[in-house]
Amino acid sequence: MKTKKIYRKKRNTTKKKYFKHNIDYSFLKKLTAVHAPSGEEDRVVEFIVNYVKKNKHKWKHAPKIFHGGKYKNNIILVFGKPRVAIFSHLDSVGFMVNYHNILYKIGGPNFKNGTKLIGYDHHGKVNAKLISRNNLKRKNKKITYKSKRKVDIGTNLTYLQNWKETRNTVQTCSLDNRLGSFISLKLAETLENGILIFTASEETSGGDISFLADTIYKKYKVRRALISDIIPTSKSIRMGNGAVISFRDINIPRRSFINEVIKNSENFKYQLEVANKGGTDGEGLIYSPAPFDFCQVATAISNYHSPREKANKQDIVETIKLYKHLMKKL
Amino acid sequence: MKTKKIYRKKRNTTKKKYFKHNIDYSFLKKLTAVHAPSGEEDRVVEFIVNYVKKNKHKWKHAPKIFHGGKYKNNIILVFGKPRVAIFSHLDSVGFMVNYHNILYKIGGPNFKNGTKLIGYDHHGKVNAKLISRNNLKRKNKKITYKSKRKVDIGTNLTYLQNWKETRNTVQTCSLDNRLGSFISLKLAETLENGILIFTASEETSGGDISFLADTIYKKYKVRRALISDIIPTSKSIRMGNGAVISFRDINIPRRSFINEVIKNSENFKYQLEVANKGGTDGEGLIYSPAPFDFCQVATAISNYHSPREKANKQDIVETIKLYKHLMKKL
Amino acid sequence: MKTKKIYRKKRNTTKKKYFKHNIDYSFLKKLTAVHAPSGEEDRVVEFIVNYVKKNKHKWKHAPKIFHGGKYKNNIILVFGKPRVAIFSHLDSVGFMVNYHNILYKIGGPNFKNGTKLIGYDHHGKVNAKLISRNNLKRKNKKITYKSKRKVDIGTNLTYLQNWKETRNTVQTCSLDNRLGSFISLKLAETLENGILIFTASEETSGGDISFLADTIYKKYKVRRALISDIIPTSKSIRMGNGAVISFRDINIPRRSFINEVIKNSENFKYQLEVANKGGTDGEGLIYSPAPFDFCQVATAISNYHSPREKANKQDIVETIKLYKHLMKKL
Repeated sequence: MKTKKIYRKKRNTTKKKYFKHNIDYSFLKKLTAVHAPSGEEDRVVEFIVNYVKKNKHKWKHAPKIFHGGKYKNNIILVFGKPRVAIFSHLDSVGFMVNYHNILYKIGGPNFKNGTKLIGYDHHGKVNAKLISRNNLKRKNKKITYKSKRKVDIGTNLTYLQNWKETRNTVQTCSLDNRLGSFISLKLAETLENGILIFTASEETSGGDISFLADTIYKKYKVRRALISDIIPTSKSIRMGNGAVISFRDINIPRRSFINEVIKNSENFKYQLEVANKGGTDGEGLIYSPAPFDFCQVATAISNYHSPREKANKQDIVETIKLYKHLMKKL
Repeated sequence: MKTKKIYRKKRNTTKKKYFKHNIDYSFLKKLTAVHAPSGEEDRVVEFIVNYVKKNKHKWKHAPKIFHGGKYKNNIILVFGKPRVAIFSHLDSVGFMVNYHNILYKIGGPNFKNGTKLIGYDHHGKVNAKLISRNNLKRKNKKITYKSKRKVDIGTNLTYLQNWKETRNTVQTCSLDNRLGSFISLKLAETLENGILIFTASEETSGGDISFLADTIYKKYKVRRALISDIIPTSKSIRMGNGAVISFRDINIPRRSFINEVIKNSENFKYQLEVANKGGTDGEGLIYSPAPFDFCQVATAISNYHSPREKANKQDIVETIKLYKHLMKKL
Repeated sequence: MKTKKIYRKKRNTTKKKYFKHNIDYSFLKKLTAVHAPSGEEDRVVEFIVNYVKKNKHKWKHAPKIFHGGKYKNNIILVFGKPRVAIFSHLDSVGFMVNYHNILYKIGGPNFKNGTKLIGYDHHGKVNAKLISRNNLKRKNKKITYKSKRKVDIGTNLTYLQNWKETRNTVQTCSLDNRLGSFISLKLAETLENGILIFTASEETSGGDISFLADTIYKKYKVRRALISDIIPTSKSIRMGNGAVISFRDINIPRRSFINEVIKNSENFKYQLEVANKGGTDGEGLIYSPAPFDFCQVATAISNYHSPREKANKQDIVETIKLYKHLMKKL
């Protein structure tokens, strides 16, 4: 397999380069702790806007920031003369509180009985525990919660963070897709030309991609998108094999753009994905009146949509390095 | 449950207010009798345009009317300086005549053997009876019809109206969603600023929401929508408990707008819905290039999509009162 | 049935007319041989653009040609002052090569064990054979391939052409939808006013219809579409019964436009379709911000999505004749 060959060939050089890219993951820890299920991304939007405002003077190039008002729960950062936009969604899967202690899923969470959940209602912070009887098949499972106090109907709950970091890996909830946004924010430090878009409601296909794409196409003529969203590990996609470039998921993007991405990736450590399920903000681009090409470039994670999503640090470094190069070449 | 508490607290005052709002339901009776399945809304469009033209001089503020031509089977009424648009769809579920007396569903009708149907083909009015063998499971049921004369292929059939009105309730076909449009037309009598949009093909997700939303956003900068579409009763949503404000159905709108709607509803009788199925014109707004927020505010009905849809008159009054307030405050 | 009556009445006259329309199918043979699965339409785009450039001086009216760049894998030909656009998609179903010799479907191919496939990877042309165990149910079938050489991951494969032509029929892969594009290109020879759009990624609902529709609506005010896409034969739709006009598939277009198409078809041989599955580029028009009406007018084919799609030559002639008339009258 192409992936493995590349892996062996480059193991040594990559390791060396890895140590040059020492990333402080405390910011990722903070980012993945923020409660921001689809539709309620307000906290993570505020968190990132504050981060950008505080840090942009340290960056090589200061971006224009568009947020609030008609931008809803999305953020656009425009650097220089953009040719390519990177989309990373901010929202996570979760659960919404219904009557009779029932939880309705937000997106496709991968849950277990006893999972700890957090949220906010009009009394303040909520702590709850997910109850799911094990003797039922997944799709028929009735999910409920227990909490020390009554929780308002409609309250959104997400996983309580349980951060675990080793020399080689990070494990936490919401790597999908705070890791994608983290990568975008790492790129922001040196990006000269390009657009970074942080989007809402990807997990529920409820976002504003049509508006966002139309806006940047009309204003900047940008019609090339890279999708910075995580990719689940599988029999073919493994942690430790570098960035992942995806040929397709449930949607099939135009091949010529993907070929261009791959051609520009030849000196990097990457693996190629062919999937027939899952989707990204790329789907929203299809419905947009702007004629976007798109390609997902991502870090693989295991335990997808669970509170224990895990990524390899070296893969994260490889993904950032590849993105840096692509944003210059595409 | 929040709903019940509010109900008890306000029962008396609400009853009093109810008697002040004596609504003549003969107009709703006429409106629900009109044959207008998805794609063939022409008759109800004509009916409403005529009604508006005839009555607008009696209204507090005369709207601009947009219909016909590029507006297809939709109608837009613009009052004053709008900030919010109310979407109510005009089409109903139904059946389309295929070869061999087979009927294909239009949307998701809830049918029984023997249901009386009407429609129009090139010979004029059609009367037919739905035939559905009871010993088969719903999804495998082959639906056919009987009629005294041959019916043209492609003819659309809808339920024959059987209007039943009591002191507290109305029962008829097509409350979904003529009741939503009826509420909009009641608001038209006093509305100062706002847009009322009457839409086509909601039941089949085939409407023109992307065009309509884009049009009013570009022209009026309006990007807030209230969805005046009925909500089915359920274990949690009951007739008699006031207007329904929905947190979600299959789509999950941005929470901050819903919170704003709820905050502005505090002096009204309402219940909150959390659903994980069904959809509204809100879905079309997601795909639109205009950055709309939306929230469904509606009256609950029982026997959803059947010829015997039923609503509580007091709920209708509460929904109208709440909408009046929201159109001033949002 | 309407279809049969018309068929009997017109058999003689139609036969006569048929002989006047002697079509050389060698161009269709070339067109259906081109490898162009969804997302990789580059070869057929180049083929058609070259054909148009080479032949347009022989046509009654020379069109403006829009292709490449933001038009991606789509082509727009604009003739005179257009009122109506004909959409025909260029892509075909196929398979994408995954790891472990597995094939993932592109769209909904109708395959058999042993089917011969072709494609291109970085070594050049690929020849492969599809392997599908017969003892499994269709949906669980794992599809793999055999090839004399290793094939790059992500390579798209389509059916190897096996052209069969009789006096009355043509049989080949990819009649869906090269036949629709072939009909458009036949119309190009004499078209005075109208737009011919050749589109990408219809089989995967991944195309650029929203962009294309918005573009021609803004530039030419065109908002009427005819969909030149094939229709599968069924119990009701038969080869030899003339062009097919569709009332609906999974989507239900506005009836008044279909009625107008039918009214203008009265002197032609056609059959009417009512389907409840399948979709076309019409679906993309629904999501577009341009307010399009659409109606599918097509030739029926058997063995839908297989390498042995078959069409009746007389039906093709009837479809072309009907389109010529409609493009003048609508």
